[in-house]
Amino acid sequence: MDRITAEPVTALVSSPFFHSSAMDGYAVRFDATFGASETTPVQLRIPGDAVYINTGEPIPDGFNAVIMIEDVNVVTSSLEDKAIEIIKAAAPYQHIRVIGEDIVATELILPENHKIRAIDIGAALAGGHTQIKVRKRPSVAIIPTGSEIVTPGVPLTKGKIIDSNSAMLQGLINASGASAICYPIVKDDLSEIKAAVSEAVRVHDLVLIIAGSSAGSRDYTSTVIKDLGQCILHGVNIKPGRPLILGTIGRCAVAGVPGYPVSAYITIDLFIKPLIQKWLGLSAQAVETIPAVIGRTISSAIGQEEFVRVKVGKVGNRFVATPLGRGAGVMMSLVRADAMLVIPAMSEGVGAASEVNLSLMRPKGDILNTIVCIGSHDNTLDVLYNFLKRKYPQYSLSSAHVGSMGGIIAIKKHEAHIAGTHLLDEQTGLYNIPFIEKYLPDEKVILVNLVYREQGFIVRPGNPKHISTIDDLTREDIVFINRQPGTGTRLLTDKCLRERGIPGQKIRGYDTIEYTHMAVASAVASGRADTGMGILTAAIALGLDFIPVAKERYDFVLTQDSYALPMVEALFDIIRTDTAFRQTTLQMGGYDISDMGKVMYSN
Amino acid sequence: MDRITAEPVTALVSSPFFHSSAMDGYAVRFDATFGASETTPVQLRIPGDAVYINTGEPIPDGFNAVIMIEDVNVVTSSLEDKAIEIIKAAAPYQHIRVIGEDIVATELILPENHKIRAIDIGAALAGGHTQIKVRKRPSVAIIPTGSEIVTPGVPLTKGKIIDSNSAMLQGLINASGASAICYPIVKDDLSEIKAAVSEAVRVHDLVLIIAGSSAGSRDYTSTVIKDLGQCILHGVNIKPGRPLILGTIGRCAVAGVPGYPVSAYITIDLFIKPLIQKWLGLSAQAVETIPAVIGRTISSAIGQEEFVRVKVGKVGNRFVATPLGRGAGVMMSLVRADAMLVIPAMSEGVGAASEVNLSLMRPKGDILNTIVCIGSHDNTLDVLYNFLKRKYPQYSLSSAHVGSMGGIIAIKKHEAHIAGTHLLDEQTGLYNIPFIEKYLPDEKVILVNLVYREQGFIVRPGNPKHISTIDDLTREDIVFINRQPGTGTRLLTDKCLRERGIPGQKIRGYDTIEYTHMAVASAVASGRADTGMGILTAAIALGLDFIPVAKERYDFVLTQDSYALPMVEALFDIIRTDTAFRQTTLQMGGYDISDMGKVMYSN
Repeated sequence: MDRITAEPVTALVSSPFFHSSAMDGYAVRFDATFGASETTPVQLRIPGDAVYINTGEPIPDGFNAVIMIEDVNVVTSSLEDKAIEIIKAAAPYQHIRVIGEDIVATELILPENHKIRAIDIGAALAGGHTQIKVRKRPSVAIIPTGSEIVTPGVPLTKGKIIDSNSAMLQGLINASGASAICYPIVKDDLSEIKAAVSEAVRVHDLVLIIAGSSAGSRDYTSTVIKDLGQCILHGVNIKPGRPLILGTIGRCAVAGVPGYPVSAYITIDLFIKPLIQKWLGLSAQAVETIPAVIGRTISSAIGQEEFVRVKVGKVGNRFVATPLGRGAGVMMSLVRADAMLVIPAMSEGVGAASEVNLSLMRPKGDILNTIVCIGSHDNTLDVLYNFLKRKYPQYSLSSAHVGSMGGIIAIKKHEAHIAGTHLLDEQTGLYNIPFIEKYLPDEKVILVNLVYREQGFIVRPGNPKHISTIDDLTREDIVFINRQPGTGTRLLTDKCLRERGIPGQKIRGYDTIEYTHMAVASAVASGRADTGMGILTAAIALGLDFIPVAKERYDFVLTQDSYALPMVEALFDIIRTDTAFRQTTLQMGGYDISDMGKVMYSN
Repeated sequence: MDRITAEPVTALVSSPFFHSSAMDGYAVRFDATFGASETTPVQLRIPGDAVYINTGEPIPDGFNAVIMIEDVNVVTSSLEDKAIEIIKAAAPYQHIRVIGEDIVATELILPENHKIRAIDIGAALAGGHTQIKVRKRPSVAIIPTGSEIVTPGVPLTKGKIIDSNSAMLQGLINASGASAICYPIVKDDLSEIKAAVSEAVRVHDLVLIIAGSSAGSRDYTSTVIKDLGQCILHGVNIKPGRPLILGTIGRCAVAGVPGYPVSAYITIDLFIKPLIQKWLGLSAQAVETIPAVIGRTISSAIGQEEFVRVKVGKVGNRFVATPLGRGAGVMMSLVRADAMLVIPAMSEGVGAASEVNLSLMRPKGDILNTIVCIGSHDNTLDVLYNFLKRKYPQYSLSSAHVGSMGGIIAIKKHEAHIAGTHLLDEQTGLYNIPFIEKYLPDEKVILVNLVYREQGFIVRPGNPKHISTIDDLTREDIVFINRQPGTGTRLLTDKCLRERGIPGQKIRGYDTIEYTHMAVASAVASGRADTGMGILTAAIALGLDFIPVAKERYDFVLTQDSYALPMVEALFDIIRTDTAFRQTTLQMGGYDISDMGKVMYSN
């Protein structure tokens, strides 16, 4: 399976190999049946002139037609003498499966350069083959380098990075039809890297050296390749993936693959996979593209072709794309990606609402079955996604965190099926409804509660900086971490500051923003900030302490059209009836689920 | 790779695990940089206030910003005392890759029921996992049954059939995510089949019993299932695939799979694959469908849902489908198929030129790169297909054999890119051109020669029936095999008969037709017929003798539009410049290639 034919496969024998009956009935000689009719039936003696035959059995020598059992009347003249009576002449070879009906000897079964499927194996066997020549899988060595890199499973210490690239590259290479093995990690030492590469190039067709391909003081890859062979290319005009090196050492192809995981992935996809396919005699698989509308402006530096990972969903009758994190180190942007948007080198980017062509990274069918959730972040979204996939494996939930206002605008622009929102209207004291009435006046919408949750200041365990009130944020020794404008959490922070008359600019870190509660909690946990506003659940998740500020309502808003989609119905089935989902939500801490699934508003 | 997560994978550690520099430069304390400007530069002592740092290195404790090397001026006041001078204040955490930038501990990396890709392995490792729980591959046993079945490689004798089903089913099952093993062949014996099944159900999740699922006298499968467990279903309303059995024995699922290979393939696809996917927590992959026009009428019996294999190509701006052999035993119809046409149970079929929806069996990109060749059959077509795929793996050649006239009509109706034709105009003595002028008056076409070839009577070695002239065909002891109307070969036969004043009805087998030269040769080789008109090459291929009748010209006709397609250019590149293709053609025997690739006509 999945190997590539190295030469044409032609049939050694015909299939079937003999004339056989296609029916249960009697084998006869067709010329003995001439003249049979209702008025002049013909009798054929058994076994001289007619022989019973099962479907699939060989036609006895001398016989050349089969009469179906239904068309035969068996007559018995004596105990030994039996005959069949027929009332219709048989045509030559009627109801006979003839030799070569499927495959005639010498016929082409499979051409060269053909990827072998299960059915091809069946046909090759039926054509008399027990072995066929296939292309050798190119042999690929993966050599991870870097003194900071440790094997997965080794306890992490500061400065150490888990070698996740080797296994990822091995998976990519194997999936492309080659066979990859991973070498042990080599530290940043010219002679050690040289020794490993020298050994690898002797026995492999291709050697991939991970990291050290930039121009830094400890980047030895290009030196190693130049010393042992030829460097063909150093640096390509793409982002991520610029510091790629391609070269040869003897008869072996060598590549210096950038160490950032997204760069590594993209360079393998663009440069290494086609090489392997060429070796195998495979054509490059055309990637399916779809037209889509980009939800947000994506700017890109002129002069580099940029590969932006995006999430895609079908909202109404168009595909809508949302860009994911663009850093070369953000592996999760690849895990979450549905498609790649390629921004040409000479472009400054794409504007919001412009039409683009996306290269799909998932089957289109999966994308059609994905609920697009854009809006406020809450930890239950991941849990909900997981429970949806558990009960309805065909559906998926894709969430992007742009804040509550961003979510409502996404619903307005038909860029999302559903939005999470927790916007408090200070005048009325109501959550979400006044905003829906203001921003979505022309939409038929429905508002459904997910949870009530606690917001407050997340602090390190034991509250070492003794933060107790909002006034503490202005202290010289306190670094704050904020959320982006347009989020309900940012509005809450600003409301608290306003009530105390504190201008944001008096707070250190007020302009430093993160996009999720977990990122705020992580900033506090890592010491990057002393505190930030976030939900209790995030504090609990990372073992942090929490100073409560407000209890708030987190709802889903969606159009009635989206609400009627089967995949959205499945989502609300989880929300309303899945007790395990409710239990998991409660176990995370910080949630009140008394109104979970309740319709709070509809028009 | 390709395993399915059995539980959500959440990050055990954040990635990155420490704050690190995103640039080569100096780590500083951001509050020590306040006030720096062109006019009031700030100096920071090394190493107390500033520490050199490479990209990726951890930020030393107490530091919280990085200044790029480009923005720093190193000043040396004494041999020991070094400092950096900066002219711009640093923002908190500038140029620092923060903890959790990629993955925050506790974050969801992969949901349950997710098929694991290379990038997912990388992300799970980066999130601190070295093992993740995946679903067990369902264990499937395949038990081939039938006294006539032999293991591949065993020399064939009359009545024996190669077991090609077991390996095909194993491939299909493994590709669907389960793990299949093949049992030895069991002969048609109730107790032996029962013993094998009893053993298999104890250790597997699913047992597939191949063949014996009909209602014939030696069909034991349903008896075995009923005796050992429960039969849930026997017979489904589909064609091919009707005699499917589904049941359970203890906790094991059992299926009786029909023995005809196409029936086996279709029942696995429709009934077994979804079961395995359900066990794995996978959603059924939506099959891509395309709208296409059917070239020929396909009639279908009312009452059964029929699965017709078709070839598909894109001619002009629409997809055109040509039905393949419909017998349940014709495995090559699956090998060659591009798509499946499902004819509903209550339909009598589809008319020529009607629009249908096809379920693709190959990637759409492959279909777009396939040259559709409809017309006269010649043995060089297979060879040409193979040489095309050898030099241009991205292109494919799909040929359907409907005779020369059928080919010209297919060009007229824009149902093919190219047609093979060898039609002699008796009045002018010219090949093909008069027919093009008559049937394609409005098309810009080009006619290119492929070969000259010899037509004649194919007879068994040594010519045992002493056939020498066309008059011998009327003999009582001679059975003829004909080609279908509309073929150049049929026209040649009829011309010969007319010249001798012989009516077709005086010839036994005149109405029995085959669709290719090889099928005619195979009919002669197998004794089904004594002779038939065909090309010398087919006689040579099967080691038969040959009585020459005429030398004829075999050309390709195509529109100028098709001629300009890159894939068609590639085909003519092979025809015109590939010496290995020419050599192989000559080696087959019976060909004159002196005009190969020459333009014989264009308008």
